[in-house]
Amino acid sequence: MKSPLRIAIAGLGTVGGGALRLLQRNADLVARRGGRPIVVTAVSSRDRKRDRGVDLGTVRWFDDAVAMAAASDIDVVVELIGGSEGIAAGTVRTALKSGKHVVTANKALLAHHGVELARLAEERGVALCFEAAVAGGIPILKALREGLAANQVGRIYGILNGTCNYILSTMRETGRDFQEVLGEAQRLGYAEADPSFDIDGIDAAHKLAILTSLAFGTEVDFKGVNVEGIRHVSALDIDFADELGYRIKLLGIARLTDHGVEQRVHPCMVPKGSPIAHVEGVFNAVVAEGDFSGRVMLEGRGAGAEPTASAVVADLIDIAAGRQSPGFGLPASALAASPAAPMSRHRGAYYVRLMVYDRPGVIADVAAALRDEQVSMEQMIQRGRAPGEAVPVVLTTHDTDEAAMRRALDRITALQTVLEPPRMIRVEDL
Amino acid sequence: MKSPLRIAIAGLGTVGGGALRLLQRNADLVARRGGRPIVVTAVSSRDRKRDRGVDLGTVRWFDDAVAMAAASDIDVVVELIGGSEGIAAGTVRTALKSGKHVVTANKALLAHHGVELARLAEERGVALCFEAAVAGGIPILKALREGLAANQVGRIYGILNGTCNYILSTMRETGRDFQEVLGEAQRLGYAEADPSFDIDGIDAAHKLAILTSLAFGTEVDFKGVNVEGIRHVSALDIDFADELGYRIKLLGIARLTDHGVEQRVHPCMVPKGSPIAHVEGVFNAVVAEGDFSGRVMLEGRGAGAEPTASAVVADLIDIAAGRQSPGFGLPASALAASPAAPMSRHRGAYYVRLMVYDRPGVIADVAAALRDEQVSMEQMIQRGRAPGEAVPVVLTTHDTDEAAMRRALDRITALQTVLEPPRMIRVEDL
Repeated sequence: MKSPLRIAIAGLGTVGGGALRLLQRNADLVARRGGRPIVVTAVSSRDRKRDRGVDLGTVRWFDDAVAMAAASDIDVVVELIGGSEGIAAGTVRTALKSGKHVVTANKALLAHHGVELARLAEERGVALCFEAAVAGGIPILKALREGLAANQVGRIYGILNGTCNYILSTMRETGRDFQEVLGEAQRLGYAEADPSFDIDGIDAAHKLAILTSLAFGTEVDFKGVNVEGIRHVSALDIDFADELGYRIKLLGIARLTDHGVEQRVHPCMVPKGSPIAHVEGVFNAVVAEGDFSGRVMLEGRGAGAEPTASAVVADLIDIAAGRQSPGFGLPASALAASPAAPMSRHRGAYYVRLMVYDRPGVIADVAAALRDEQVSMEQMIQRGRAPGEAVPVVLTTHDTDEAAMRRALDRITALQTVLEPPRMIRVEDL
Repeated sequence: MKSPLRIAIAGLGTVGGGALRLLQRNADLVARRGGRPIVVTAVSSRDRKRDRGVDLGTVRWFDDAVAMAAASDIDVVVELIGGSEGIAAGTVRTALKSGKHVVTANKALLAHHGVELARLAEERGVALCFEAAVAGGIPILKALREGLAANQVGRIYGILNGTCNYILSTMRETGRDFQEVLGEAQRLGYAEADPSFDIDGIDAAHKLAILTSLAFGTEVDFKGVNVEGIRHVSALDIDFADELGYRIKLLGIARLTDHGVEQRVHPCMVPKGSPIAHVEGVFNAVVAEGDFSGRVMLEGRGAGAEPTASAVVADLIDIAAGRQSPGFGLPASALAASPAAPMSRHRGAYYVRLMVYDRPGVIADVAAALRDEQVSMEQMIQRGRAPGEAVPVVLTTHDTDEAAMRRALDRITALQTVLEPPRMIRVEDL
């Protein structure tokens, strides 16, 4: 067996602790699969005292992760600090510049600086691996980069944030409203005290930007992602979705269009019969549509110490075994700088819910607003009757342009009989 | 860009034609992903005249695939002939012995001779790749071998035969019986004229034997697979399954037990809430349970020219890019020769359906037979009442030993009030 692969871990939080435990518990297996042992020679963490369930007695401690990344007796730096700038970025750049392989779970860093870092890694002939950055324990990056490498991908989409999926699943199962379920998720540890990163879709957008690059061979373009979160999804919408044959999921979706790369993260109506509709709770899933493979879906745990550690160590095993491929599937110089398609050019179907006064002529006014913007209605449902009071009216459209839909919604909002801004959720053809 | 990878394709049937079309249509993409062009320099097929939608004018034709495998100007032999012996085996052995990489979709060959061929490949320092042999377009072998390489796999299971899944899905949707749906599947081309290979579980068993080796690091042991097909699944059982909260699927399942490697292919009752219950029609799916990753499921098209070609060319891209790993995840010499666990040692829950005379004392007799073999009943349902006539009675058990269950079934079969041999379907805890 060859000499050990010497690794340094920067950041010993949840994921770092999981990686340490995996490397200890499955050490023999890892060595057999990689053809050589993987040994933790150095770590860096703010808190030396915390019990991580692993003996770190023989390991060198660094207070400064960047200094560790420059140290001489290390083959791979594993960056598990997080954040797109600051120490994490400094650690990764220093490691690459000093000729070390890098494994990271840092989606924000990759979403913002992916191409730059990939270029740096290629210049030095080292690996930049980040399987753990997207969908935790699901080996989706390897699947896209290698397993489905022969395919032109037409579209890729997924449930990329377990917190949002847990909240939406629980809202559906219990009929409770968003704020109540969010509070419960926070108490259970499924949502952060400041949940905005998850529920406003930023986390999913980071992951989507990475997936898009791998799927289409384009430069990572986080700024090109159109993002809406799930704060405005109500119990009423979930109920109507069920009635119409849909479930509401926060999806990240990317495809190549005539207007450029369309990347969007927002709540979607997905048909109950589609495989992704059945992905519930904290589970993640990604679907890739290849021109030869057809629809391939990978489902599993998208977060947590152990699934993420599984992905981190898979990358280390690849490095140990000498299996190297460009992080984004192609050399950084070969990634296309495609323009981002603006959301106004999106074309698709829409669900719209209005609260209206239940009196004659309201439906006619709404229908006229849609007609005036050339939006073709598929169906309209008024639930219940309460003459002179507020009732919900729901409509769905045939495929239409987002710009036209938005103009129609402005017209509808201006109607005196419409009581609050319409709620719009896009319907996905999956 | 490096010099082209020169490949020879043995067998230009459905899959061979698909591979040719893929290599032509996605040639640029394939070259970029693999870092060099992949060029078909030779082919071998019985039928030179058939139109495969691809110009083969400049390609060398061999009548003898084995002779082609020995030719000098070829880097990789792609074996798409099929069958565990004969020309396919000769072609693969000759290619490996003459120092060529081999890519094959031949599950029967791998199931019967996998270890021998892997050893041969290692001796010559060439790759033996067979992603296409299991679950077509789903990159499950790469996921197990590399993506989940850091995990001890506790159990692996899957829907590995699209024909069976189509038949069972259609029986459930239409309420029709096995023979009728099989006939329809044959007319639609989803089942062969001689369907026994599929519906008796042999095809799934070949694939399971390969998956087991990759998941557990054991030698491929096709003879160790316990196989039952779907001929005996009736519309009545599918109906009862629904009532009890299950769907019936033909699964291949493997796990390590105290008695050795348990491998089995048979119809299963799977809980409706489990992800694999929703995999319908011709789709395949494989679930791996890793100690760190948790449950990971991959779903997609398990057969057909295009999905299989996607897998074949992914292997070729790996070879072109110089990414090599042992076919079964470990060197052949490191694969464990674990004993096969006998089916009699299986432990699990059972569904049993009886046809009995509806008269007093029948249920007591059945319950006594179970008690005498220490089988603990979970529930019993008699459907309908028809005093003095035949009615179905269904029971489910708690976890019990297969040997005890079989003895209990023998006792039940011997009861005078039981009209036909009991139908037993194992209930899986997924």
